[in-house]
Amino acid sequence: MNVPTNDTWRPHAGDPVFDLHAGGKMEIALSVPLSGNEELSRAYTPGVARVCSAIARDPSLSQHFTWVPNTVAVVTDGTAVLGLGDIGPAAAMPVMEGKAVLFKQFGGVDAVPICLDTTDVDEIVETVIRMAPSFGGINLEDISAPRCFEIEARLKERLDIPVFHDDQHGTAVVTLAALWNALRLTGRTVESTRVVISGAGAAGVAIARILVEAGVKDLCVTDRKGIVSSDREDLTPVKRTLAELTADRHGHAGSLADALRDADVYIGVSGGTVPEELLATMAPESIVFAMANPDPEVHPDVAHRYARVVATGRSDFPNQINNVLAFPGIFRGAYDARATAITEGMKLAAARALADLVGDDLSEHLVIPSPFDPRVGPSVAGAVAGAAREDGVARAR
Amino acid sequence: MNVPTNDTWRPHAGDPVFDLHAGGKMEIALSVPLSGNEELSRAYTPGVARVCSAIARDPSLSQHFTWVPNTVAVVTDGTAVLGLGDIGPAAAMPVMEGKAVLFKQFGGVDAVPICLDTTDVDEIVETVIRMAPSFGGINLEDISAPRCFEIEARLKERLDIPVFHDDQHGTAVVTLAALWNALRLTGRTVESTRVVISGAGAAGVAIARILVEAGVKDLCVTDRKGIVSSDREDLTPVKRTLAELTADRHGHAGSLADALRDADVYIGVSGGTVPEELLATMAPESIVFAMANPDPEVHPDVAHRYARVVATGRSDFPNQINNVLAFPGIFRGAYDARATAITEGMKLAAARALADLVGDDLSEHLVIPSPFDPRVGPSVAGAVAGAAREDGVARAR
Repeated sequence: MNVPTNDTWRPHAGDPVFDLHAGGKMEIALSVPLSGNEELSRAYTPGVARVCSAIARDPSLSQHFTWVPNTVAVVTDGTAVLGLGDIGPAAAMPVMEGKAVLFKQFGGVDAVPICLDTTDVDEIVETVIRMAPSFGGINLEDISAPRCFEIEARLKERLDIPVFHDDQHGTAVVTLAALWNALRLTGRTVESTRVVISGAGAAGVAIARILVEAGVKDLCVTDRKGIVSSDREDLTPVKRTLAELTADRHGHAGSLADALRDADVYIGVSGGTVPEELLATMAPESIVFAMANPDPEVHPDVAHRYARVVATGRSDFPNQINNVLAFPGIFRGAYDARATAITEGMKLAAARALADLVGDDLSEHLVIPSPFDPRVGPSVAGAVAGAAREDGVARAR
Repeated sequence: MNVPTNDTWRPHAGDPVFDLHAGGKMEIALSVPLSGNEELSRAYTPGVARVCSAIARDPSLSQHFTWVPNTVAVVTDGTAVLGLGDIGPAAAMPVMEGKAVLFKQFGGVDAVPICLDTTDVDEIVETVIRMAPSFGGINLEDISAPRCFEIEARLKERLDIPVFHDDQHGTAVVTLAALWNALRLTGRTVESTRVVISGAGAAGVAIARILVEAGVKDLCVTDRKGIVSSDREDLTPVKRTLAELTADRHGHAGSLADALRDADVYIGVSGGTVPEELLATMAPESIVFAMANPDPEVHPDVAHRYARVVATGRSDFPNQINNVLAFPGIFRGAYDARATAITEGMKLAAARALADLVGDDLSEHLVIPSPFDPRVGPSVAGAVAGAAREDGVARAR
């Protein structure tokens, strides 16, 4: 585990961040009255026995008479928390609680943070499967790559409820929405745009995949050693597949500098930096998404010297690529449709709904809506539920 | 698994029980404001990173800046749900949700129902240990005997947070409280009273143990084959220990009829029935606790022909032995003291606090307070926190 040593993290009295987190950020609330013997005998014994028996006879009734279908477990092992890395399960809890309150506030979904005291892939998979009857879906969070890919794949195979790794797919959905609008603004087509993704972790891999789904042809991903291409000897299985899906198709290979020369789009999900002189080599009217948190790969003011559209992960600059735009509505929509999974079609529908909300307000400073735009959650949910029905994974209606 | 076949369990429109349970009985609520970018940046990124880092440096800070220390996982495998038996994890959820809302309503504790899709002791223990960083305590619920004993013992050994099997200890605490008052009413001393417990499952074993702790000398437990005594060849290891603790000490052996002749107290936790003619053989001014749910081992009107004090598990008769009198206050007190365990001393203190609340109102019809007596939770919590400090398991103050 990593233990930060920087003294600025120390809590102090009157600190508004620590004051806000005191006592935690969430609690359980009753949604039934419980003020007398009659109510008690309905909510608990003896009345509750009839509800249990009904579900034992017809398991589908748990969809109607428990909180399960509206819940999601926010599951982490604390190995890749924000930019902090492997800080362990206990220290990860404030992020998981934060995620949970966002689920409720923006999607009406009841989320329970589950921080696991194991980093073993088999153990994480087993543990989540064993607790799965308690939840309507699983949101994987802040689990390091490449373990996150295997954990997600195995859980999707074993469970018939939505399993979603937000660091991958939430990021990918919002990035695609912003990119669609940036391309529209700069008069580009998806098919003719050349994209460079810096960072081959969970977010980078998922963004690459969704961009290919969305029709991007010329795409390469870079890691610390340069372009992820099959001529390299050091690729993990995940990166080898990624190379075949991206750089290999146009024969890209070499350094980040080679990748960025004449590129239309830079998408940073690396946590590192990108030198200004490389941005200067990109195509005119370029697009720069510098999404590292809390410090973007390049300051927006610097990026704007070369790029027409600049986005970051931060709320204090325009165009915030924020996962909260996606995951609450995606789960809301999946649950409204009683979906058994979250499909590629549902993710693309979420991105399209987000992009469309910008409409005629499109400008360099507005390629993605604000998280506080009240239309966001309902629009994404509606689009996702519709796509679930089209994709044949909806159980409702 | 058991699947009830009785048609009276079928839900129908306008049924007040099923109406109450529609959509579940609980939800997540935010305890922080989240209405704008500034609040979002404190509750989530980037602000939350400072809280995570602080906890990574000093794990004790998770007690202050997360919801964990006020939470409990209500864990079941669905094998012994109420009187329904092994109905599986999904059908157990309404009871676990009910338990969770009682935890909140009567103890201010945030409880999360966890229904496990395994009945294997090793797997249950592993799973709970892996998820333990997410919770301030573990309440085991409706897990069948004798597995429940081993699961509880192993979890207590491995975890430094309270682990409590309510079917055992909650029942035992409330039974002891009611018994103390019934003995006071009938002018008996604990040491001179002869007690018969019918039922050697989780509740029977725990009641026997707490009565011995409380000073009861002459005690025997019966199961379907009669008195649990060491002359029998069919005893499990748990029952062998139980025999040595109870019947063997006075050389009791034989049938339930042998046990009840001249006994002062009958405590039924068997789920069966007790014949009226056996109650007739008990000592004068006898005490009958017929606690099977929903059907007591003997109807209170019948029991009153022979007994001076009668209690049941039901809210529609006087003297309800209801676990909700104990578990919310026990956890509240344990959490207020930041206790690392729930000791025998804390359970005895809870029972004493409950018994004392009856005070001068003591009568045949009032040996135990009502769950809706507002003094119950605070009194139990205060006594338990005090006992935690005396027993040296408190981390607070």
